[in-house]
Amino acid sequence: MSTSRLETFCDGVFAIAITLLVLIIEPPDSGSLAHGLVHQWPSYLAYAVSFLTIGIMWVNHHEVMRHIAHTDWTFLYVNIFFLMTIAFLPYPTRIVAAHIRGEDERTAALFYGCTMTLIAVAFLVLWLYPSWRGRLLRQDADPAAIRGITRSFLPGTPLYAGATLVALASPTASLLCYAALALFYVAGSVLLARP
Amino acid sequence: MSTSRLETFCDGVFAIAITLLVLIIEPPDSGSLAHGLVHQWPSYLAYAVSFLTIGIMWVNHHEVMRHIAHTDWTFLYVNIFFLMTIAFLPYPTRIVAAHIRGEDERTAALFYGCTMTLIAVAFLVLWLYPSWRGRLLRQDADPAAIRGITRSFLPGTPLYAGATLVALASPTASLLCYAALALFYVAGSVLLARP
Amino acid sequence: MSTSRLETFCDGVFAIAITLLVLIIEPPDSGSLAHGLVHQWPSYLAYAVSFLTIGIMWVNHHEVMRHIAHTDWTFLYVNIFFLMTIAFLPYPTRIVAAHIRGEDERTAALFYGCTMTLIAVAFLVLWLYPSWRGRLLRQDADPAAIRGITRSFLPGTPLYAGATLVALASPTASLLCYAALALFYVAGSVLLARP
Amino acid sequence: MSTSRLETFCDGVFAIAITLLVLIIEPPDSGSLAHGLVHQWPSYLAYAVSFLTIGIMWVNHHEVMRHIAHTDWTFLYVNIFFLMTIAFLPYPTRIVAAHIRGEDERTAALFYGCTMTLIAVAFLVLWLYPSWRGRLLRQDADPAAIRGITRSFLPGTPLYAGATLVALASPTASLLCYAALALFYVAGSVLLARP
Repeated sequence: MSTSRLETFCDGVFAIAITLLVLIIEPPDSGSLAHGLVHQWPSYLAYAVSFLTIGIMWVNHHEVMRHIAHTDWTFLYVNIFFLMTIAFLPYPTRIVAAHIRGEDERTAALFYGCTMTLIAVAFLVLWLYPSWRGRLLRQDADPAAIRGITRSFLPGTPLYAGATLVALASPTASLLCYAALALFYVAGSVLLARP
Repeated sequence: MSTSRLETFCDGVFAIAITLLVLIIEPPDSGSLAHGLVHQWPSYLAYAVSFLTIGIMWVNHHEVMRHIAHTDWTFLYVNIFFLMTIAFLPYPTRIVAAHIRGEDERTAALFYGCTMTLIAVAFLVLWLYPSWRGRLLRQDADPAAIRGITRSFLPGTPLYAGATLVALASPTASLLCYAALALFYVAGSVLLARP
Repeated sequence: MSTSRLETFCDGVFAIAITLLVLIIEPPDSGSLAHGLVHQWPSYLAYAVSFLTIGIMWVNHHEVMRHIAHTDWTFLYVNIFFLMTIAFLPYPTRIVAAHIRGEDERTAALFYGCTMTLIAVAFLVLWLYPSWRGRLLRQDADPAAIRGITRSFLPGTPLYAGATLVALASPTASLLCYAALALFYVAGSVLLARP
Repeated sequence: MSTSRLETFCDGVFAIAITLLVLIIEPPDSGSLAHGLVHQWPSYLAYAVSFLTIGIMWVNHHEVMRHIAHTDWTFLYVNIFFLMTIAFLPYPTRIVAAHIRGEDERTAALFYGCTMTLIAVAFLVLWLYPSWRGRLLRQDADPAAIRGITRSFLPGTPLYAGATLVALASPTASLLCYAALALFYVAGSVLLARP
């Protein structure tokens, strides 16, 4: 399969998953609407964090594909597994939106965090598999640039796992960590003009 | 990232958000079906207004991309933020469809209007950022045409904000203002053959 | 806007609307599951009829676009209006699936039929506007082929309107008419190898 | 219609159906959230099995299209019918997720299995129709490779039908059979580097 076709399919799943996220927001069902809409700020926050995270993953996925010369069966299924974790994200987003500030908020934040960490692991595999000894990379790939990308992707998993552990102390802080990670990432890309 | 890939991704989100809108219409749950289907005209109106607005935004997004020569990280994330507001629209559309003509209609119309205004602001940034001093524009872009586009985009935000303020006086009138804005826009494009 | 970009956007809406249809099927909520799954055959029928109709509309839309040389603003908005009717179809499909064989079945079938007729009218405009005096057609379009297409599209509206009127006598028969129209259309295309 | 346009449309439906699957998972509605999230493992399993199956079908669909030189009307509608079965899969996935380990689990597993078998049959037709006497194949297609593909696709239907029959003895085992079939398929592709 050509890399461009694989990339188009992945882009489709990214675009759909990111747009489906809005369905996780449940209309408030009792009391005044104004109070209900304000009170559900965790839903907006969860929406924004997941939206931005999928957006960043989409950008990073392109970064990976830009260096890939060809695909093989393993890489194809690594992509499908990665998409499975991305497409799953609306569910924990919905859970965290419904339960944060409630009595089960720790469970909800841990569930959300585990999914985010799983996405980070799947993404790491998505990069390490094709780049290992240049397996699927373009012939003209610059080894220094490749090592730079590996270095920039490695901290993702421990950072996401760390934000998940924060949920044990404070579920809301955990969600804010994910927001901060996404915003720092965007700010870093913009300010440092990451290669 | 190439502009064509960014544009394809944005088109995907536009197409999905516009098609998801139908899910905001809740089947009437009691009384005669005929009465229920007629009585829910605000849902059809909200569906049509949001559909047309996203359609117009899609057309305008192309107008922007047509003049862009290359992207940078800031423009990429400006696009993702813009898409976040577009993809959010089904939620306030659902709120306004459920509450217009009800006791919380003012809140619902204000919520809808604020989202529309946010979309207008995000879209303005989407144009002003790349066009400021020709930052990301094509070399051969005609300065007069660029100024013309800026002039045609500037009134959007105050018009949308104005329609939102109308909700304070009459929520239904506010919704009709959005319908009128969309229809005037379409009629203007067709009659004046906007460049 | 290029015709290929318009066509890609329309294809996206077709693909999403056709795939969203499955969401109209509500799981049976009481009694034995086996009985419930069998008893909801109208949902499967409505799913299949709407799926096939959108599929046929997609094929016909290509037939139209194949002859179009360029677009103008009116054609752009005619397309958006046509897509608005296609994207709306899941709602009446859900209504007819829930109410056929129930006490409000006539209303449901009329509502479904009116939407189908509206789609047929919108599609006719989609063809008559660009083909009128060859307005947007390719220079090398064969006039005889164009007249042949017009002739093949004209019966759609009266046939769909007729199937809607059948609902006044028998709602189930009306739904079967739509199924028959779709199947005859497919059979005709296959057997006659329509140009 | 060109094969590339048909393939793009099919890819869209695959991407949407695979991403919609997450909507089948219902949040637990009572008791502790932690218990509810763990207790709903059948939902995760059903999500993963259906996701992987659609992913494999997408890969196989490309395998078919790679050998097709042109389309005809019959092949177009065979594709639409095949997509109808793929797009339907979220519904039985939802049924099996809700009922496995419950009192109606046999019915749910049979319903799921029948849909999977129908997909397998539709896929077989999708290959046998264009490859029969090389009807729509490329001129340069290698007859030995074509026979190899036919041989590799033929076991699908009896294997899926067999997994469905397992549901009569044990519904959970039937679901695990589908998981095993998908995993064996992936492992086989990766290890044998299927042509």
